[in-house]
Amino acid sequence: MHNAANNVRIAVDAMGGDVGVSVTVPAVIRALKADADLHMVLVGDPAAIEPLLARVPAALRARVTVHPASEVVGMDEVPSKALRLKKDSSMRVALDLVKAGHADAMVSAGNTGALMATAKFVLKTLPKIDRPAIVSALPSLRPTGHVHLLDLGANAECTAEQLVQFAVMGVAMVSALEDVARPRVALLNIGAEEIKGNETIRTAARLLQAMPINYVGYIEGDGIFHADVDVVVADGFVGNVALKASEGVAKLITAFMKQAFLQNTVTKLGAALVKPILARFAQRIDPRMHNGASLLGLRGVVIKSHGSADELAFANALRVAAREARIDLPNRITALWNASQRAAPEA
Amino acid sequence: MHNAANNVRIAVDAMGGDVGVSVTVPAVIRALKADADLHMVLVGDPAAIEPLLARVPAALRARVTVHPASEVVGMDEVPSKALRLKKDSSMRVALDLVKAGHADAMVSAGNTGALMATAKFVLKTLPKIDRPAIVSALPSLRPTGHVHLLDLGANAECTAEQLVQFAVMGVAMVSALEDVARPRVALLNIGAEEIKGNETIRTAARLLQAMPINYVGYIEGDGIFHADVDVVVADGFVGNVALKASEGVAKLITAFMKQAFLQNTVTKLGAALVKPILARFAQRIDPRMHNGASLLGLRGVVIKSHGSADELAFANALRVAAREARIDLPNRITALWNASQRAAPEA
Repeated sequence: MHNAANNVRIAVDAMGGDVGVSVTVPAVIRALKADADLHMVLVGDPAAIEPLLARVPAALRARVTVHPASEVVGMDEVPSKALRLKKDSSMRVALDLVKAGHADAMVSAGNTGALMATAKFVLKTLPKIDRPAIVSALPSLRPTGHVHLLDLGANAECTAEQLVQFAVMGVAMVSALEDVARPRVALLNIGAEEIKGNETIRTAARLLQAMPINYVGYIEGDGIFHADVDVVVADGFVGNVALKASEGVAKLITAFMKQAFLQNTVTKLGAALVKPILARFAQRIDPRMHNGASLLGLRGVVIKSHGSADELAFANALRVAAREARIDLPNRITALWNASQRAAPEA
Repeated sequence: MHNAANNVRIAVDAMGGDVGVSVTVPAVIRALKADADLHMVLVGDPAAIEPLLARVPAALRARVTVHPASEVVGMDEVPSKALRLKKDSSMRVALDLVKAGHADAMVSAGNTGALMATAKFVLKTLPKIDRPAIVSALPSLRPTGHVHLLDLGANAECTAEQLVQFAVMGVAMVSALEDVARPRVALLNIGAEEIKGNETIRTAARLLQAMPINYVGYIEGDGIFHADVDVVVADGFVGNVALKASEGVAKLITAFMKQAFLQNTVTKLGAALVKPILARFAQRIDPRMHNGASLLGLRGVVIKSHGSADELAFANALRVAAREARIDLPNRITALWNASQRAAPEA
């Protein structure tokens, strides 16, 4: 199963996240076990990292490098300060490794704002992309079982042109990752107004209609989870609220279900009887399986993990990074941009 | 239990909604049975309405008036056209009855845009309120079990001053309806940016901090469903997307649960065993129990029902209308506005 073309090296911000090395290092070991062509560079404090690698089998240990970095970006640190003052942070050094070609992708569970600012500064954006966007796969009732939503919060305010860039990036991502020839892309909008949405959305819709991509129109918030679209585009404010509200409702419903099953002895007996069914259901909506959001639009693969990710969730973010590095997603995006600029608008 | 002060008369747009009289008339009968001090005016085509009242007991029938209206606003009709051209629509005539003092509240499952435009034209907004907002109660994990979110889609773009007006209206609503002395109000925002959100949100936050209301700060999307706040304020675009995305996720999770329980004979047996538990759970997240959104900020009580509401859901919207009419919500809002303008900012 070894294949040189499959070899990929991920620089991991080992110190990032709410917990740090006690989550990131075990997750790295888990990911290495699952993927024989994966190599990792753990960036951070060697004194904290090395002990956690002590009992790892030699064959697996051979695929891990520890790269020292003396500083850590705090979860609440102001991004511009982190960028200016912490040049030897685990986050910054991991990004430097990608920039220098020593790693194919970077993963961090650290401060989102700092990661965005530092990644943009170190790696720069792709040609014709103004600002990176955050994208993630969400579960959907459509046959493929998921949908990609962007921007999830990198850009609180967007121009119509930026929304178009997000659409192109999302389409490039899905066509590269999923072998979908012409991914379907929609704009997130509201339906209550006479002329739907606002001027920015309407301009973006006009621009998308004139491009050789498969733009299918507007969807409303509920459509994210059932409409037959591969990519949903929104500005970072709306996308972030949609994502977080959805997470909130999922927690609410799970809590209500627990309350129903734990109400009394009879319901607890019922819960015990259907435990495997409930477990299978819980697994399906487990947000950890969707951890790992891509910072799209950079000259390099950068994946943001939830700050509160546990080992399973962080390992999933590593898997997302490996997948995007293997298909060289940044170059695929540029190729699609160039193709869509050359092609005549569709009839 | 009869109390003259409790008497309230609701004008019902009997023709509105995806279905019309076969939902609205049975829902009216259901609501009258549940509330002895309720009176109804069914507005629409008497030939369609009267047959559905034929078998209603006389005592109950005595609390229903049928008021003719010759036109119906279509669900996809352009709001400004409906307003200009259909002056004898069931929607318009029901609003005229409120304006003339012949009804205390109006309920419609019709076209949201047309209802908003017509209600604003007929009833006018309250003093110091620029535009009405749509508000609804959503379930929450907090002890009270719910939270009020506005605007749900009436205003795709809002100024900071409008967000402040929404906050005051929401606070007035909760303090009047729920006997909460100082309702807690938050602004919906995102957390990823260095300086959170956009300029409009930040200005609104500054204005709210200077007012004698209990403004508690920003929450993110997931906070809608668990944060300890009574009122969450957003512009209509963000609020609408948050609401609809939440509805979408609830449907997704319900579908996943059904699939888990209906997978094979064994899981179906499990479902049969825990049927009462699942039924209690399903009832708790039943969106029909939250049907009935208020058009807040008008000189009259106007309630919007989901277009696809069934009898139970529409009856719930009627219950919401009765409750708001009984406390004279529009005047409560004006009173709070005046009080908050007079009072000095809190220390």
